Amino acid sequence: MAVNLKTMMEQVAQDIDRLFAEQLPVPEDPRRRLVEAMRYAAIGGGKRLRPLLVVATCALFNVDREAALRVGMAIECIHVYSLIHDDMPCMDNDDLRRGKPTVHKAFDDASAVLSGDALQALAFEILSEEKIHTDPHVRLELIQALAIASGKDGMVGGQAIDLAAETSTVPFDLPTITRLQQLKTGALFGFCLEAGAIMGRQNKDIRDRLKAYARDIGLAFQIADDLIDAEGDEAVAGKAVGKDAAAGKATFLSLLGLEKARSQAQALVDQAIAHLSVFGSEADYLRSIARYIVARDH
Amino acid sequence: MAVNLKTMMEQVAQDIDRLFAEQLPVPEDPRRRLVEAMRYAAIGGGKRLRPLLVVATCALFNVDREAALRVGMAIECIHVYSLIHDDMPCMDNDDLRRGKPTVHKAFDDASAVLSGDALQALAFEILSEEKIHTDPHVRLELIQALAIASGKDGMVGGQAIDLAAETSTVPFDLPTITRLQQLKTGALFGFCLEAGAIMGRQNKDIRDRLKAYARDIGLAFQIADDLIDAEGDEAVAGKAVGKDAAAGKATFLSLLGLEKARSQAQALVDQAIAHLSVFGSEADYLRSIARYIVARDH
Repeated sequence: MAVNLKTMMEQVAQDIDRLFAEQLPVPEDPRRRLVEAMRYAAIGGGKRLRPLLVVATCALFNVDREAALRVGMAIECIHVYSLIHDDMPCMDNDDLRRGKPTVHKAFDDASAVLSGDALQALAFEILSEEKIHTDPHVRLELIQALAIASGKDGMVGGQAIDLAAETSTVPFDLPTITRLQQLKTGALFGFCLEAGAIMGRQNKDIRDRLKAYARDIGLAFQIADDLIDAEGDEAVAGKAVGKDAAAGKATFLSLLGLEKARSQAQALVDQAIAHLSVFGSEADYLRSIARYIVARDH
Repeated sequence: MAVNLKTMMEQVAQDIDRLFAEQLPVPEDPRRRLVEAMRYAAIGGGKRLRPLLVVATCALFNVDREAALRVGMAIECIHVYSLIHDDMPCMDNDDLRRGKPTVHKAFDDASAVLSGDALQALAFEILSEEKIHTDPHVRLELIQALAIASGKDGMVGGQAIDLAAETSTVPFDLPTITRLQQLKTGALFGFCLEAGAIMGRQNKDIRDRLKAYARDIGLAFQIADDLIDAEGDEAVAGKAVGKDAAAGKATFLSLLGLEKARSQAQALVDQAIAHLSVFGSEADYLRSIARYIVARDH
């Protein structure tokens, strides 16, 4: 690696944990269990890939790092809430997440619903605060972009298509799976890069390049996830594996086959990096992240 | 009634239905079911009490009615999502809401989770738009206030206390029930009045009076709800009744007794109206709403 991505990842993960711990003090009243469930899900887990993308993008434009981390925390609120709800028995019914019992297992289903709901509200509360940026237009633009990226036309829309796939009589084809994944995971990745561009007040050309990078690494990320599900180790992945094949679900892997899926992921990473050609070494972290995304084992 | 509240309620209900229908076109793709679940829950039901409060408060300050309705729609997104999630089997497990099957009954549990999640995101998307107000500070203030009123320190916090009540070995006392209800329903009522004051750019004194009105009608509303649960007719209420007693749950009614609960609700209404003494006849709608809140049968 040209830059030390591992050190940066560890630092971002530590900072996000610190911010969550500050943001979520445990109250001495009956809301205790709710806030403990929020902390359980939000603190001390995950790769923090989305906050990392925000921090790495903001660094291109010399945006204050603490502000970038706070935007990263807001996105992580959305990502974590979606995992809590997605793991519930009525959704994917997963018992293990980030190497520990899922929220509905460690607490209960009702706490899973409520802690997810409260984390979503927290995301928008964080972005509305002056600590993000003194210019209200910047904050509003972030809020609007996150609401769209996480709602029916973004992440939740993608989850709904995923749900429809399970009951569909014909397996989904490649264009449908691509669209599903672009919404389900791609929209939030896109927001991470867009947020950096908004914070850095960049023009449309730069925004489009960063969004193109995000689209490519989003799909590469999903193919890598399919490979982990097919070939990975549960202990390393920190979650159940082999689920797609067991469910007979159409994935990039089932549609492309192992070899083509691998080469496609690599092609997407190369393409993502090509979109960064206008930047110099200041974009080396983003380049490293793109490579890491297909090389990871969890 | 000094003013024709019934006509105003019908008009607001019709306007909110229109706005939701415009906001939620059904897509011709696999997200169809998600959006249909959102429409099913959001259109054509309920008293629209919260939008009514926003419109009546905004009218005090000559705020554009269409903008007030859009703020009302955002609050209704939050209210409706909380009902969808609250009705789920793992929460209150209710089959009937607003006189028709609940979302998880008419659709399925996963659609209930996702449609609620998407409605929450939609609330913040709506408030971020320029149609609400040209001044970004006004929009940001609304977003921040709604995020707090609906999250762990507001509505969801109240639901979490409600959940704790069910597993508590000692029944909750009056101060705890009051706090629970102030968060669970009071926080959103408070936001309705605060939103009107924010849109009307009112000073702290006016805001405090309107917040005091909201606090009082919020508690009166909850006592009235307890009375409907104890004495109401399921067909008229549009939801299951008699649930509190069956669950042995501490409520205002169980703690105060029937007679004292009734007189307490009336005292709260009188007190709420007293907070409006600085206003002339332009506040007659808010006065009528306060009276309606304890007189209603659903």
